[in-house]
Amino acid sequence: MSDNNFSRRRLLGSVGAAGATGLALGAAGGVVSGATASDDTLAALTAVGSTGVPFYGEHQSGITTPLQARGHLIAFDLAPGAGRSEAVALMRRWSALAAELMEGRPAAEGDTGVALDAGPSSLTLTFGFGRSFFDRTGLVAQRPPELDPLPNFSSDQLDARRSNGDLWVQIGADDSLVAFHALRAVQKAAGAAARVRWQMNGFNRSPGATDRPMTARNLMGQVDGTRNPKPSEPDFDRRIFVPAKTAHPWMTGGSYAVVRRIRMLLDDWEQLTLKKQEQVIGRRKSDGAPLTGGSETTEIALDKTGPDGRLVVPDNAHARIAAPEQNSGAAMLRRPFSFHDGIAADGTPDAGLLFICWQADPLRGFVPVQRKLDRGDALSPFVRHEASGLFAVPGGPREGEYVGQRLLES
Amino acid sequence: MSDNNFSRRRLLGSVGAAGATGLALGAAGGVVSGATASDDTLAALTAVGSTGVPFYGEHQSGITTPLQARGHLIAFDLAPGAGRSEAVALMRRWSALAAELMEGRPAAEGDTGVALDAGPSSLTLTFGFGRSFFDRTGLVAQRPPELDPLPNFSSDQLDARRSNGDLWVQIGADDSLVAFHALRAVQKAAGAAARVRWQMNGFNRSPGATDRPMTARNLMGQVDGTRNPKPSEPDFDRRIFVPAKTAHPWMTGGSYAVVRRIRMLLDDWEQLTLKKQEQVIGRRKSDGAPLTGGSETTEIALDKTGPDGRLVVPDNAHARIAAPEQNSGAAMLRRPFSFHDGIAADGTPDAGLLFICWQADPLRGFVPVQRKLDRGDALSPFVRHEASGLFAVPGGPREGEYVGQRLLES
Repeated sequence: MSDNNFSRRRLLGSVGAAGATGLALGAAGGVVSGATASDDTLAALTAVGSTGVPFYGEHQSGITTPLQARGHLIAFDLAPGAGRSEAVALMRRWSALAAELMEGRPAAEGDTGVALDAGPSSLTLTFGFGRSFFDRTGLVAQRPPELDPLPNFSSDQLDARRSNGDLWVQIGADDSLVAFHALRAVQKAAGAAARVRWQMNGFNRSPGATDRPMTARNLMGQVDGTRNPKPSEPDFDRRIFVPAKTAHPWMTGGSYAVVRRIRMLLDDWEQLTLKKQEQVIGRRKSDGAPLTGGSETTEIALDKTGPDGRLVVPDNAHARIAAPEQNSGAAMLRRPFSFHDGIAADGTPDAGLLFICWQADPLRGFVPVQRKLDRGDALSPFVRHEASGLFAVPGGPREGEYVGQRLLES
Repeated sequence: MSDNNFSRRRLLGSVGAAGATGLALGAAGGVVSGATASDDTLAALTAVGSTGVPFYGEHQSGITTPLQARGHLIAFDLAPGAGRSEAVALMRRWSALAAELMEGRPAAEGDTGVALDAGPSSLTLTFGFGRSFFDRTGLVAQRPPELDPLPNFSSDQLDARRSNGDLWVQIGADDSLVAFHALRAVQKAAGAAARVRWQMNGFNRSPGATDRPMTARNLMGQVDGTRNPKPSEPDFDRRIFVPAKTAHPWMTGGSYAVVRRIRMLLDDWEQLTLKKQEQVIGRRKSDGAPLTGGSETTEIALDKTGPDGRLVVPDNAHARIAAPEQNSGAAMLRRPFSFHDGIAADGTPDAGLLFICWQADPLRGFVPVQRKLDRGDALSPFVRHEASGLFAVPGGPREGEYVGQRLLES
């Protein structure tokens, strides 16, 4: 099975083909069948490594791409003195780099070698602009109102140093070394144009660890993401992506990402009984089904009462408050990573959710839902929002374009 | 492919069988074939999740088990006032827990649910005793001299708070949530008997990301571990495991683990040219072959000179100094995890290697090699040993035994 003369070049030919045909199944896909081995030396490389996600397209990758096993978030500020021309050059460099790495090729310059041997492993790089980017680059007239600062929520305990930023890059891959390699390459390619503002690491299940194809658990043990809109739903695009008719056409096909580092107070949470945890959430822990019955995908019977006349899913249950039906159909696509940065100074686990949600307009996605959660969510005592970011993520580049070109050359 | 009625209980029957037959292939195994699905509902769970590693046996798991995608190291000190009887109860609890979790079962008490849906995913839990454990439990007479403190090395910059400890647990799994679940369960089961001293997280390649069956790359991009002894070699057991004829029979079948948090100074390293990096290591970066030619597994021609009359593998090349031939055949089994804890306060990556090596005697394994590296390794300027631990890891328990019973009931 071993092949010491394994040729990366031949692999990459194969992988490029896989990427082009869009075989981007990844972590949530269960048994993945994206391998396109073209000769015997490749037969042993499984689909985890050989799966590629296209860089070019209507939307950037990493939004509807299935959850990957490993993620890095990194925010940059433009360096003092850097402006629009430096930003243009930077986005050119990052785009060229992303196109290379997402096909499993090494970086054209100074590759560290960390990803050698592995295929692209569903690597995605997703680029966004923060509100301050437009000030720095003289593009305030192009700044969409969707980037207005998020409202303050009463339960926020935000660390400004780990929040926002001029530029944001989300990296995901099904292999930790492939993801780390991309992170370092992105940092290196920033050169003198931008400085790291903050950086966070996350993870999801490994491909093949479970046969449940869609729904992940978070570090509270809860099935999380059941009500996520599905790309197959007719209004998915309208809710998640900016349409062609928009006041800021450079955002056509783009989306707004809200990023929250949500610490879970696991020592407290784990002291609750299972029954109490399920009351807080409104769903069964074992399978994510609503407390009103059925299976995970059954709709919650919000008005159903028990023998005692009380609502089966309590008034303040998280699943009730967050339900799209309770929020004028507000919808966002949640696509998180869990995080675990060891043990905090106070002895509690520094762990939780790198919550990332995608929407055509945060004022009709994240904001109304978070407002309601902020007022009366039974889950609130067990979570703490520690950092926050809001980024405009432009549409995907066409071949020959770089990400953000329609903004930066407008 | 989806099966919402997926039965964990049925899965576990299957997994137990896989564990019993020792189908522990894991991360390094390329295409893994350990699945033993017994009916259609299991067919979709791939071998990544269904692979189990036996808890009982001659040696503890996590020593010769192939590298797993995710790892946690956690050290504890016995709580003030706790002594031998608390230690006995703790090792009983941890052993029962490990046996459950490694079969993919939930913890008997207060399971958090984080690992539900996934199979055991090659989970291993490995338990060790530090030097101070024997003082705390009145067992100094049973303390082997192999636990004498490691010598100081001139390049050490050790943080005592992240070093050593009474008790050490190594957790590895091919799924991040399965590993995290086990970590929390171990902490919870410590109860009032022990307090966390330090905790570290690491990772390796995901199963299936590469077709190279044996050798991993580290975060410098270097193939790392080529000269590791192989279990198939005739003197492997003698070098790695404590023999039956030993002054401290409770360690029969056990091994000594040296743990070093080795920070890589990647910003400096990545500024070297590829050629210079290869001179530092003595091997080609692309495939790990010695600079004297051949493939990765070719022995280094240590005396070979180039046209200029100089040694092809320089005097101070890492691979030369670490070569077993240069160290009276000293051998240790290196089984590391990479780590990446984001960006340090000084702006450099807080990343490197959780170096873990296993040997029957540290004075004939880690110590002589590290002494030589400490004196003249060309790699030294690019790494920093930041924490250190030395632990006695007893042999594996027989069914009905708990880990360390032969020590604690001696």
